[in-house]
Amino acid sequence: MRLLDEQAVEHIALGASLLGTGGGGDPHVGRLMALNAIRKHGPVQLLSADELPDEALVVPTAMMGAPIVIVEKIPNGEEFITAFKGLQEVLGKKVYATIPIEAGGVNSMIPIAVAAQLGIPLVDADGMGRAFPELQMVTYHLDSIPASPMVIVDEKGNSVILQTITNNWAEELARVCTVSMGASVMISIYSMLGRQVKESAITGIMTFSQEIGRLISEARARNANPLQELLELTRGYELFKGKITDVSRDLKGGFNRGLCRIDGIEEYNGRSMDVSFQNENLIAHRDGKVVATVPDLICILDVDTSVPVTTESLKFGRRVAVIALPCDSKWRTEKGIETVGPRYFGYDLDYVPVEQLAMKQEAE
Amino acid sequence: MRLLDEQAVEHIALGASLLGTGGGGDPHVGRLMALNAIRKHGPVQLLSADELPDEALVVPTAMMGAPIVIVEKIPNGEEFITAFKGLQEVLGKKVYATIPIEAGGVNSMIPIAVAAQLGIPLVDADGMGRAFPELQMVTYHLDSIPASPMVIVDEKGNSVILQTITNNWAEELARVCTVSMGASVMISIYSMLGRQVKESAITGIMTFSQEIGRLISEARARNANPLQELLELTRGYELFKGKITDVSRDLKGGFNRGLCRIDGIEEYNGRSMDVSFQNENLIAHRDGKVVATVPDLICILDVDTSVPVTTESLKFGRRVAVIALPCDSKWRTEKGIETVGPRYFGYDLDYVPVEQLAMKQEAE
Repeated sequence: MRLLDEQAVEHIALGASLLGTGGGGDPHVGRLMALNAIRKHGPVQLLSADELPDEALVVPTAMMGAPIVIVEKIPNGEEFITAFKGLQEVLGKKVYATIPIEAGGVNSMIPIAVAAQLGIPLVDADGMGRAFPELQMVTYHLDSIPASPMVIVDEKGNSVILQTITNNWAEELARVCTVSMGASVMISIYSMLGRQVKESAITGIMTFSQEIGRLISEARARNANPLQELLELTRGYELFKGKITDVSRDLKGGFNRGLCRIDGIEEYNGRSMDVSFQNENLIAHRDGKVVATVPDLICILDVDTSVPVTTESLKFGRRVAVIALPCDSKWRTEKGIETVGPRYFGYDLDYVPVEQLAMKQEAE
Repeated sequence: MRLLDEQAVEHIALGASLLGTGGGGDPHVGRLMALNAIRKHGPVQLLSADELPDEALVVPTAMMGAPIVIVEKIPNGEEFITAFKGLQEVLGKKVYATIPIEAGGVNSMIPIAVAAQLGIPLVDADGMGRAFPELQMVTYHLDSIPASPMVIVDEKGNSVILQTITNNWAEELARVCTVSMGASVMISIYSMLGRQVKESAITGIMTFSQEIGRLISEARARNANPLQELLELTRGYELFKGKITDVSRDLKGGFNRGLCRIDGIEEYNGRSMDVSFQNENLIAHRDGKVVATVPDLICILDVDTSVPVTTESLKFGRRVAVIALPCDSKWRTEKGIETVGPRYFGYDLDYVPVEQLAMKQEAE
């Protein structure tokens, strides 16, 4: 057990927004929510998954919707407590701890704010090890943990409780409600026992986010570019450096879908990269060839500072680096690839781990 | 209190499908569900609203969705019990009786089946005195009775509990869930106390449906045309007789929308009628002039037998009579017309009671 203070929150927000791979919400919004809660209620206890009692009830809380809308509707803090307490009431049992569903600028921060406000511990684990756009895209789902009962709350005061036969039904119904409710809502979902967290979650994600954030933050303080150190820490690959020349977007079905085109600079001069996204970055093509796909993490960073750029902040003229990090091994199983591989997102591509793609490119 | 037996159910199904004004579901489907339940569990107690204790909890159950889909998905009887019991559980109080939300071939029958299966009484009242396509279109809403908590159940086993800030939000969220769940679901909604039923419901609707059904049924037995008797019983107006020449439909947003064109026969030879519908018949134009609009009841009947024709059974070549009945006076208030008048449905028309339109036409 250790305590998360304001400094830790700052680092986690920054690092988690890298793991958010373009999605997971705006880190400034998430940071403010968590910092406010910690300033008011004191530091949050971070438990490693090992420290959880096997029978302890753990409930994740998150925001659902298009991140571009989340930026415009900063929640007041009451909504996530309402969603959390709503699910606790449905379950009829006291919740021991909360846990993130994904890593991302907002969705790593909301559980911190919930933990601070309710005086409960936070678990150092999540269900993605990154961010993904749909509710069934969690390692909890791979182990058949049900998403429902699930509570959805909007900022107006409407709430929805779902009890679904499959996790894909939870995604389907929650998505249409989210769109109707204004494209951004608070959810509480995937209640689990301690032993399920130990078995099914991706552990250590808050600590890993914090290390990434600290590295970027300390480099910024000394005006250094942390890219190489970042690649070492994350076992990542540099894919490209360039200037964004075009971003097309389509805010449809509650998602922020689009394509970002980048023209090469420095050693990539004369070359080009396309990154397709659906809230999160999904596929990276360099000079027309696939160099990384989901579930591996495709991250777009400021070329000088390595500060992560979310998909809603992609803008013409912005100079960026694109890197890819290998995903957690839970995603590289058959069910994992079926759930979050390129084909699920509609791409006629087999998943090839980024390490293999990098070796192949080097050989050419 | 009186008992509803199989004969009563047959008559109510037939009469309610007239009051369904084209919507409210297929009377054959509804009839079968109620008859099965009565055969298995015995006759149902029908209470007049006056007989309800003031503090008794009353819960309506209904089907929601496009009637054309309901025909294809006959519910197995478990779903409406699940919806009913789901709401009872949310309310945490035993339900004393059930009540229809609207009059219609299916939605008058489901409460009979629920009452039979659970051994509880049925109240001789509803919230529309007819059928309407949206959830806030009930006299309960006019008196600010909240639609939620509301339970939605599909035949697959998914369920949704809504708690909304307004009744229009209940309609909005329930509608998107209904469309996702396969365009036809069971709902339980507008829980009320006995005294609220007495004040806000349209009373005597089951008995009225039964009288209408008996009249049509007995005429059929002696091969007579009951149209004139029917108009006397319902204080209705004959608008047209003709042959359907065209029916356009658009199954959109969970509704069955369309337009039915009719060419005159007999004394209407050379004249024409258009009836617009959204699940229910909304507006009738004769020779281009408005002769009836919601909330008054526009009913299309078989021209020989006066058996009501639902909007999903409108077919080219079918010979029909079109009649209009004055709606309940609760609908003729300012809030009533705002809620269910022609402008709500997108028509640039003021509501004029059918009695006045009939007098005007006669004078011309």
